[in-house]
Amino acid sequence: MTAPVTDPVALHTAVQQFYAHQMQAMDSGRVEEWAETFTPDGVFAANAFPEPTKGRPALAAVARHAFTEAETQGVVRRHWLGMLYVEPRDDGTVFARSYALVIITPKGGAPALSRSTVCEDVLVPHSNSWLVQERAVTRDDL
Amino acid sequence: MTAPVTDPVALHTAVQQFYAHQMQAMDSGRVEEWAETFTPDGVFAANAFPEPTKGRPALAAVARHAFTEAETQGVVRRHWLGMLYVEPRDDGTVFARSYALVIITPKGGAPALSRSTVCEDVLVPHSNSWLVQERAVTRDDL
Amino acid sequence: MTAPVTDPVALHTAVQQFYAHQMQAMDSGRVEEWAETFTPDGVFAANAFPEPTKGRPALAAVARHAFTEAETQGVVRRHWLGMLYVEPRDDGTVFARSYALVIITPKGGAPALSRSTVCEDVLVPHSNSWLVQERAVTRDDL
Repeated sequence: MTAPVTDPVALHTAVQQFYAHQMQAMDSGRVEEWAETFTPDGVFAANAFPEPTKGRPALAAVARHAFTEAETQGVVRRHWLGMLYVEPRDDGTVFARSYALVIITPKGGAPALSRSTVCEDVLVPHSNSWLVQERAVTRDDL
Repeated sequence: MTAPVTDPVALHTAVQQFYAHQMQAMDSGRVEEWAETFTPDGVFAANAFPEPTKGRPALAAVARHAFTEAETQGVVRRHWLGMLYVEPRDDGTVFARSYALVIITPKGGAPALSRSTVCEDVLVPHSNSWLVQERAVTRDDL
Repeated sequence: MTAPVTDPVALHTAVQQFYAHQMQAMDSGRVEEWAETFTPDGVFAANAFPEPTKGRPALAAVARHAFTEAETQGVVRRHWLGMLYVEPRDDGTVFARSYALVIITPKGGAPALSRSTVCEDVLVPHSNSWLVQERAVTRDDL
């Protein structure tokens, strides 16, 4: 999907499509593909972690750990983003603020909300899509 | 809403509007209107069912059964789609992959997640919107 | 974000962006900012309330009460809108129908669905965005 940053409507929609790709990659265990949606030196900070995770190899490792843990527990995890607000900045980056839920479903059971968070990203244009340069996730329960 | 398949931004948005119409029709019990959002020979397959449902009369019958069952139980059902990823194909169809939740609310009670699924559609352009030619719904709990 | 009412794709996206701004303002306790997303004589009706709330000062007061109550209880509230259907009308207003969830998260606990509702808005263009002229929220549990 092309992402002409100059048009706010195209921008909002392109970021949605980008997030759909990104979250589906993570939830499917395609963690290298997920890590590649960050810049090579991309940073993932969260109030749940003492220190930010930086760079694709480290990001992929964290994602793999979480995915494997879910598999071991026999649950399927889904990341839902919503209420997306995007703001193009003068330097060509895009600030994106959204709500994010983690929903887990055990085999044979009902889905449950696991986490409610706010996700704040700095996105940079890349090819005809985006990369996350910095992500800050704030869990509502902490 | 017009759905110019050639523009990926318009495509993504038009599919969202199509899904909103489709899900609101089902959740409101307008099951014939819902069935008409499929092609006449439209197919609905699900890992919850032994065989796919095919054709508008059969689709409407299944939807009516589910709606009546919810009414009998005194619950309101809402279908939420999110994390939509669309991919136009060379044959003019569109592949759409999204997450879908079913949320049920009993009279006098709190809402609950009932199902978490992945919904994969092949959409065909129709008038200024879309029709579902094939739908495959995969429940996370099965 | 510009909101050229004549283009249905731009319209759908601009309303999403508007709602993201509006809900994030409320959930963050910026209740005056939230009230200013309504017209000066904006009306909020709900099947949970005996009478509609009218005008920005009254709207802000209701929002402040709800926000303070949540703070007192030690929970974070998030309003999620989804399945948005927009319909431009001949008089220049826009009818928007969406599903809305309230998700609450206690400190140290898991998030829970608090309300499932349908939100029907009449929006009027304002500057490069929108204002709510009339909102009707129908809770599924009542």
